[in-house]
Amino acid sequence: MNTSERITNLKASYGAFESQSLEKLSELLRFPSISADPASLPAVRDCASWLIDYLTEIGFQVSQWEIPSSGPPTVFAEYRASAAAPTVLIYNHYDVQPVDPLELWSSPPFEPEIRDGEIFARGAQDNKGQLWCVLSALKYLIEVEGGLPLNVKLVIEGEEEIGSPGLISILAERKAELKADYLLIVDCGIPAMTRPTVTGGLRGALMMTVTAQGSKIDLHSGQHGGVAFNPNHALIQILASLRSESGEILIPGFYDGVSEISAEERELFDFSFDEKDYQTQFGCPATGGESGLTPNERRWLRPSLEINGFGGGYSGPGFKTVIPAEAKAKLSCRLVPGQDPERILSLIIETLTARTPEGISLIIEPLPGRAPAVRTSPTSNVMKRCAQAYAETFGTDCKFVLEGWSVPVTSFLTKTSGAEVAMIGLALPDDQIHAPNERFSLERLQLGFVSTVRMLELLGGKE
Amino acid sequence: MNTSERITNLKASYGAFESQSLEKLSELLRFPSISADPASLPAVRDCASWLIDYLTEIGFQVSQWEIPSSGPPTVFAEYRASAAAPTVLIYNHYDVQPVDPLELWSSPPFEPEIRDGEIFARGAQDNKGQLWCVLSALKYLIEVEGGLPLNVKLVIEGEEEIGSPGLISILAERKAELKADYLLIVDCGIPAMTRPTVTGGLRGALMMTVTAQGSKIDLHSGQHGGVAFNPNHALIQILASLRSESGEILIPGFYDGVSEISAEERELFDFSFDEKDYQTQFGCPATGGESGLTPNERRWLRPSLEINGFGGGYSGPGFKTVIPAEAKAKLSCRLVPGQDPERILSLIIETLTARTPEGISLIIEPLPGRAPAVRTSPTSNVMKRCAQAYAETFGTDCKFVLEGWSVPVTSFLTKTSGAEVAMIGLALPDDQIHAPNERFSLERLQLGFVSTVRMLELLGGKE
Repeated sequence: MNTSERITNLKASYGAFESQSLEKLSELLRFPSISADPASLPAVRDCASWLIDYLTEIGFQVSQWEIPSSGPPTVFAEYRASAAAPTVLIYNHYDVQPVDPLELWSSPPFEPEIRDGEIFARGAQDNKGQLWCVLSALKYLIEVEGGLPLNVKLVIEGEEEIGSPGLISILAERKAELKADYLLIVDCGIPAMTRPTVTGGLRGALMMTVTAQGSKIDLHSGQHGGVAFNPNHALIQILASLRSESGEILIPGFYDGVSEISAEERELFDFSFDEKDYQTQFGCPATGGESGLTPNERRWLRPSLEINGFGGGYSGPGFKTVIPAEAKAKLSCRLVPGQDPERILSLIIETLTARTPEGISLIIEPLPGRAPAVRTSPTSNVMKRCAQAYAETFGTDCKFVLEGWSVPVTSFLTKTSGAEVAMIGLALPDDQIHAPNERFSLERLQLGFVSTVRMLELLGGKE
Repeated sequence: MNTSERITNLKASYGAFESQSLEKLSELLRFPSISADPASLPAVRDCASWLIDYLTEIGFQVSQWEIPSSGPPTVFAEYRASAAAPTVLIYNHYDVQPVDPLELWSSPPFEPEIRDGEIFARGAQDNKGQLWCVLSALKYLIEVEGGLPLNVKLVIEGEEEIGSPGLISILAERKAELKADYLLIVDCGIPAMTRPTVTGGLRGALMMTVTAQGSKIDLHSGQHGGVAFNPNHALIQILASLRSESGEILIPGFYDGVSEISAEERELFDFSFDEKDYQTQFGCPATGGESGLTPNERRWLRPSLEINGFGGGYSGPGFKTVIPAEAKAKLSCRLVPGQDPERILSLIIETLTARTPEGISLIIEPLPGRAPAVRTSPTSNVMKRCAQAYAETFGTDCKFVLEGWSVPVTSFLTKTSGAEVAMIGLALPDDQIHAPNERFSLERLQLGFVSTVRMLELLGGKE
């Protein structure tokens, strides 16, 4: 059977169990496994148990790795094909982002609904939908084709959306179990359905909450305006000072050590970006970040500092003439190779503290799960095989790209497993992840199934 | 009877009906008459009806003035003592501020509770408690002493907390009814129980909502950070540019025409301010506003621009790595004599618009009810008589002060009534108005009753 017949057959095989598969995926999507919300922990644990049952049933040896916080556990599963075969470690996560603003969802976030060939739910893509491409392929290969073409280990964690603090902290003690030849991080995407890609780099991440405190109670702004220092003003003044008008981050030392990409390396990645299409898709021009660079240079090669949230005083309907007792901001950095998260955190703390005006106390609470950036070469075996599988599945060239986002565990997992890493997945930019009406197309569930089967075969040495 | 006997008698008379009076005040405090919240309109109207019943019962001729928006009406009431007597117009308001954050209240905001000699409720001081000092004095004089010593007109409005747009818009057509010799604005206070004061000036006010819009949906900050312009950054950058590090407002033309106070006028007011006491009371030093000026110079003589609210993205527990579609800020200015609110508004709109970066749309929505500042002379009859009444009641000197806050209707009402104005009241700086656990002391309800009686007598020509 040649490759093209194999692809045709796999698509047909998928068709035969699609409706049954969508039912199981819907079960998985119904768990409100929000890792950021401690109240969701029971749902998170139920979701992990569901995965354990599924994997046990198809023949994996499964264990549940508890983490020090007793929070969302990691599901670890292993299938041994043969001692001679290479081993692939596949990473996914089963936790999801919060769902607010709830009123903007067309259907409830945890009641999956299929409309116009797409499945809508929180996690439909990020990452339960992407995980499903892997799980459906494994089930098919074992139950229909009699086994897997190589040894497979799965790490499915429950804290990705809060920076994977638990999993990162237990990696060292799981080193033997995690040993692998190849590592697939299945949490990435492609720029368009016509342009399959494999990702060779992710930015690192660093998050913190910054609180500016003034008076001990909210004050009337007529009575106290010009007397008490307004924490809104203080925090706005401090945050504005972190960024030049041309988008440069004004923290001394922030860019130190940032590695430039070599001309050769640069040639291997596809930097093209359609600004007109971006504007149409998101309703805004691509004017963020540093001036003088293209959008993909900015989001792939340059670090960022974003204000993800700011809340201070009354911003609802009407008006409240208040000087709030405190104002709060959520900051995150995306880091590039050469930036150590701990060093950058120190620089930020130092800078914010030095710029705090008299009369205001600043409290900086870094989140756990700080992660360095990852960059891998498109010339490695795992990158080439993944690209080949996508090229076959989509029937077109597969390019290599970088990404601006982070899967914090990636750098740590790469190091611990000793594996060659590739970052893959079929996310599209308008899947509305982390936003209302998150979705994933049924077509991509099929293509994800097919490409996963082909990746396993190719990595197992079967052309 | 000499003055000191009169004061003693009035205190004793108050004691005789205090508990009955507190019951009636509690009824008034139970109406959730929040003018900023359209859902509260029925409660607002019920509150107005309650006042009409009360005033009719004690012998006033009462009417309800509807306003163009059909929102909270104004209660107008009149008592004619004699054609020869002067007429005093007394202004109060029955609307209150919103109550959030509700969880910080020790008892529910609309279930008044007396603890340790203080009554706790939204509006306990601002302005239902202060209104009660007037209403209890009027009832006593009419029912116990047989009448009022001068003609009294009352204007009790329902939109003060949102800038009095309705009342201001109908003042011209009510000119004849509002004609008066003296105008008392009963919405002010004293710095401490040992320091009675009468207020000779208020700052004007100007409020607006500013919205910075970027993309049409919330975006993932890893995927879009460095590509889309973050509305949080844009709005923070714009707002930070409005204020120098030394607290000066950086809007070209903002200070043009600001009148300096003359040395003679300055001598008449008490500018003393206890910075140590302020720090103890509010938990923050008096470091707001422009450097190089004393706290009372800053809040009485200088205009301010405050950010009363800022909301953009996710600022709750945990973290959400989002670039929000929009960020919103609530801004207010306090204005001083020489600043025309309409001109200042134009300057702000022009400045904000010019500083908006590419990729962001700015929407500026000014609130109605813009008001110029008020300043009156301590040498006028009304100011002198009010100070005398407070001096008698408190048994100590009464000083003249200015205030930083606004009662937006004041300048318009002064002009329409043709009256000499004084701004009075027994608010204390730590009554927590506009904040959780608003309160007013039972002692001040008594002293407010006594001083109101004496003001009416003194203005009526009875020493």
